[in-house]
Amino acid sequence: MEEVRNQQVIFKDYVNGFPKESDMSLTTSATVPLQLPQGSNGVLLKNLYLSCDPYMRGRMTKTEGSYVASFTPGSPITGYGVAKVVESGHSSLKKGDLVWGFTGWQEYSIITAPETLFKIQHTDVPLSYYTGILGMPGMTAYYGFYEIGAPKKGEYVFVSAASGAVGQLVGQFAKLTGCYVVGTAGTKEKVELLKTKFGFDEAFNYKEEPNLDATLKRYFPEGIDIYFENVGGKMLEAVLLNMRVNGRISVCGMISQYNLNQEEGVRNLSSIIMKRLLVKGFIVTDHYNLYPKYIEMVIPLIKEGKICYIEDVVEGLESAPKALVGIFSGKNVGKQVVVVARE
Amino acid sequence: MEEVRNQQVIFKDYVNGFPKESDMSLTTSATVPLQLPQGSNGVLLKNLYLSCDPYMRGRMTKTEGSYVASFTPGSPITGYGVAKVVESGHSSLKKGDLVWGFTGWQEYSIITAPETLFKIQHTDVPLSYYTGILGMPGMTAYYGFYEIGAPKKGEYVFVSAASGAVGQLVGQFAKLTGCYVVGTAGTKEKVELLKTKFGFDEAFNYKEEPNLDATLKRYFPEGIDIYFENVGGKMLEAVLLNMRVNGRISVCGMISQYNLNQEEGVRNLSSIIMKRLLVKGFIVTDHYNLYPKYIEMVIPLIKEGKICYIEDVVEGLESAPKALVGIFSGKNVGKQVVVVARE
Repeated sequence: MEEVRNQQVIFKDYVNGFPKESDMSLTTSATVPLQLPQGSNGVLLKNLYLSCDPYMRGRMTKTEGSYVASFTPGSPITGYGVAKVVESGHSSLKKGDLVWGFTGWQEYSIITAPETLFKIQHTDVPLSYYTGILGMPGMTAYYGFYEIGAPKKGEYVFVSAASGAVGQLVGQFAKLTGCYVVGTAGTKEKVELLKTKFGFDEAFNYKEEPNLDATLKRYFPEGIDIYFENVGGKMLEAVLLNMRVNGRISVCGMISQYNLNQEEGVRNLSSIIMKRLLVKGFIVTDHYNLYPKYIEMVIPLIKEGKICYIEDVVEGLESAPKALVGIFSGKNVGKQVVVVARE
Repeated sequence: MEEVRNQQVIFKDYVNGFPKESDMSLTTSATVPLQLPQGSNGVLLKNLYLSCDPYMRGRMTKTEGSYVASFTPGSPITGYGVAKVVESGHSSLKKGDLVWGFTGWQEYSIITAPETLFKIQHTDVPLSYYTGILGMPGMTAYYGFYEIGAPKKGEYVFVSAASGAVGQLVGQFAKLTGCYVVGTAGTKEKVELLKTKFGFDEAFNYKEEPNLDATLKRYFPEGIDIYFENVGGKMLEAVLLNMRVNGRISVCGMISQYNLNQEEGVRNLSSIIMKRLLVKGFIVTDHYNLYPKYIEMVIPLIKEGKICYIEDVVEGLESAPKALVGIFSGKNVGKQVVVVARE
């Protein structure tokens, strides 16, 4: 029986304000046998790629009744990842299978409910994509844009956090639908990416715009039909003034608010009435039944080069805390991935 | 040919903050012949009942691109009313017909687009009801509650401005659907009405509640499935914290914001994500195609005494400015109606 040490990223304690690297620590367990406990019907995973996602900030706060449990102080961070099955006590998976789903920030994890994992069927694409375009963020962009946004050709689409794991896909889906799409991001480099790499019609750096209402009026003289909301706060306030009648706001995230002790107030909500807006929040895990349909759509698009995906990849579990903290100040360019092992 | 003087309520000029009686003036025209201009295909109406509605505040401000045009300074106020046809140049209406729809705040009006008027079919109910339960506010309650709220038996419903023209109906529709319903209003008298007359399960005076979040938690320990939004601002902010997963907010109005120069900011919008909320604004005039279906439902309910409707009736055009101004500080108890003439 092989024995291993299991390196882990431990969540130290609940966080106030912006998370810091020091809110996590790296530990290595004593040597443990690389096997499932006797009689387990779980699976033992070797983790390959881990995903850094904005929703994880919510898990760093002690909350009750949230849609996802808080992290447990003293235990490893948990989140989405790609992994290889080392040993399986469950009929749906066998040794050597590749999966994506909820796992731990460590080299090896035992998953006691393997039915929550997705077995990876397509391996002729980068495996790390299953933390992004082929995983939770991909499904998020798909559901939020197509199912809530209900886009029609020629409509005007605005995407915030547009170069992120979700936003870059929303923009490309919008172009494939024949929409006019403008994105916003927080650096010059990202703005360039939006225009040159992802095919957004226009893009701007919100940090350089003193009057977001005026900026939006410049980019959308006819107004916005679909706003894909990733940031909340002042951007939402300005967007509300620029929505068109019967517009849709697909509310995916509000990252600008996650590190505040109290949310900012948002004005201009009366636009919801005047413009008959639909504002719809969603949690993608409610809609995983659509995953096969999404994969069927997106795999050919990737293979034919009709859609691209940019990742910001760091190597090693020891780089994970910095990578996770970085997404809350927009340090990542594209989907933030941590490589634990490549196979 | 009969000749008349036409008393009118004139809108003097655009309004800042709360409207005042002095923003309107009463005038009486010179004697005019009581007839349509030669060749007109409009109708000449004798106005009977006029409706005071919160949306009229928006028309007192000079705005562009609003869903309803601003009032014209120097011209009569316009709004919903019930009237009798004095002379018709239009094939769909004849002398003596009763109608409801958009008319002027004056004794006699010429309507050049009579196809916007609804011909009254049921006259064995109070005619003034066509400014309320059988008119625009009734359709508003119907569409906003049934079509957007999509209520199910046993769900928890909260209504703000609950004793008003729309709210009192939403509460009764909710009870007829088998929901648990709580209303809020701004006086003890109104709170009593909600419980004793309209059958709300509970009601409270928001002016006596220092912590609306705590108040809502007391009345909705299980949370709110449907919020019928008439007020906006701090109430919405507290409601967002108390919505249940998959809750619906039917956004009908935000009267608390209409007289402010700048809207209040509303916090807690991240609940829209966490709780997968649907927030949908609407303008009832988009949905008048459902009016026959609504009438078919509500007329029997009225006749069988299964639904009641309370009006706050003032007599005479000269009382109209005070009545209109009063609704913005909650002076009305029930639907605010102005009687111009009874037949």
